[in-house]
Amino acid sequence: MKLIIGNKNYSSWSLRGWLACKQSGLHFDEITVPLYGDEWDSQRASNDLAPSHGKVPILWDGDAVVWDSMAIVEYLADKVGRDRFWPKADDARAMARSMVAEMHSSFFALRRACPMNVRMRVEGVTLGDDVRADIVRVLTLWAEARARFGGGGPFLFGTFSAADVFYAPIVSRFLTYGIGVPGFAQAYMQAVWEHEWMQQWIHAAQTEEWVIEQFEAPVK
Amino acid sequence: MKLIIGNKNYSSWSLRGWLACKQSGLHFDEITVPLYGDEWDSQRASNDLAPSHGKVPILWDGDAVVWDSMAIVEYLADKVGRDRFWPKADDARAMARSMVAEMHSSFFALRRACPMNVRMRVEGVTLGDDVRADIVRVLTLWAEARARFGGGGPFLFGTFSAADVFYAPIVSRFLTYGIGVPGFAQAYMQAVWEHEWMQQWIHAAQTEEWVIEQFEAPVK
Ligand SMILES: N[C@@H](CCC(=O)N[C@@H](CS)C(=O)NCC(=O)O)C(=O)O
Ligand SMILES: N[C@@H](CCC(=O)N[C@@H](CS)C(=O)NCC(=O)O)C(=O)O
Repeated sequence: MKLIIGNKNYSSWSLRGWLACKQSGLHFDEITVPLYGDEWDSQRASNDLAPSHGKVPILWDGDAVVWDSMAIVEYLADKVGRDRFWPKADDARAMARSMVAEMHSSFFALRRACPMNVRMRVEGVTLGDDVRADIVRVLTLWAEARARFGGGGPFLFGTFSAADVFYAPIVSRFLTYGIGVPGFAQAYMQAVWEHEWMQQWIHAAQTEEWVIEQFEAPVK
Repeated sequence: MKLIIGNKNYSSWSLRGWLACKQSGLHFDEITVPLYGDEWDSQRASNDLAPSHGKVPILWDGDAVVWDSMAIVEYLADKVGRDRFWPKADDARAMARSMVAEMHSSFFALRRACPMNVRMRVEGVTLGDDVRADIVRVLTLWAEARARFGGGGPFLFGTFSAADVFYAPIVSRFLTYGIGVPGFAQAYMQAVWEHEWMQQWIHAAQTEEWVIEQFEAPVK
């Protein structure tokens, strides 16, 4: 398998696709295409990126090509078994699936105002009401998942699951933009941040040399 | 099971959730909550709609609650078997999963400019470049799915699948907004429109009395 991703410092959807590949336990090669770099126009039209019309991540597996992070999770779950990605109990899995789908289709204010930037640290950022509503919604979902289903470990549904894969870039944003969160969320975020795969990703992001100016500060 | 949906005439995500329930073959009760009606504020805060913060569709199944159309597909596929929703071959399933995920997270220009309105017919609508780019992208995906995997029947992957569930509201838009499409797409759209479940939905939409003024014409 071959996973095409964007810069590790900036590409939140790539992080999701990459964590999903790690979670599958299968071997995969990584190819990084720096977003919006000098050669972006020709790269996004290349064969590797054609199926998504120039978006990352994309997973190639022989004849099969999967060009969206959520589809990658499900495709890999088909391959290695659902239990590696999703909680076993129906009610927990219903919630995990809904939270992941909500992340995939919503939270636009937060995503726009606070682009992922793993290396950055800002303090005292001023956020609009819509961004704050998104943050409250995330914290509400995390609180409910942890309270109802988090007994078996430090992650949203106990052990590391697709839900953590999908909220990992939010953890990064809350930390790097200095968003104040309650204690239970701090503990959860620390568990994600210290996860072996996150540490690998963060280290790689810190050593990348590309800089995308528009993602170097909160967006007004 | 109990499925909470919005007005059949206008609610595109409800149509997806409802078709998914039909596709499961399981019995379900339907509860319609008219979107943006007089009692919308109190309804969206009700217990039935609380998990999604007031969005439809929501599927209740005992203790399990699933509050997003894509999560509903996957939750039902867990229950009745993946083959009822997704193609069997890896390469076809990879494409179907990617197309569904792209529908779930993209096509904002088309969705905003042409809100679903099953009853309406408009001709000669003027569309912006971004909307036309979305239409071209949809047609490209349909053409490729039909050409590579559509041999076994009139639908995107031959037999009716989650991909048709997700693109059904787009079929409705292309028809009601009078969007010109090539012959292969006309044939596909006709197959979807004439599908027994679509006919049931359309009939119900035509007999609804609610009118939402802002969805009664293309949005500038
Ligand atoms: N729904 C897609 C979103 C992918 C996406 O938007 N990726 C961004 C990078 S994080 C991208 O490729 N942007 C480049 C562009 O849009 O030109 C997924 O879940 O994978
Ligand atoms: N990602 C959700 C989207 C659901 C959605 O936005 N539904 C619309 C109706 S089609 C809604 O409930 N709108 C009411 C509101 O946002 O207040 C899904 O796939 O189910």
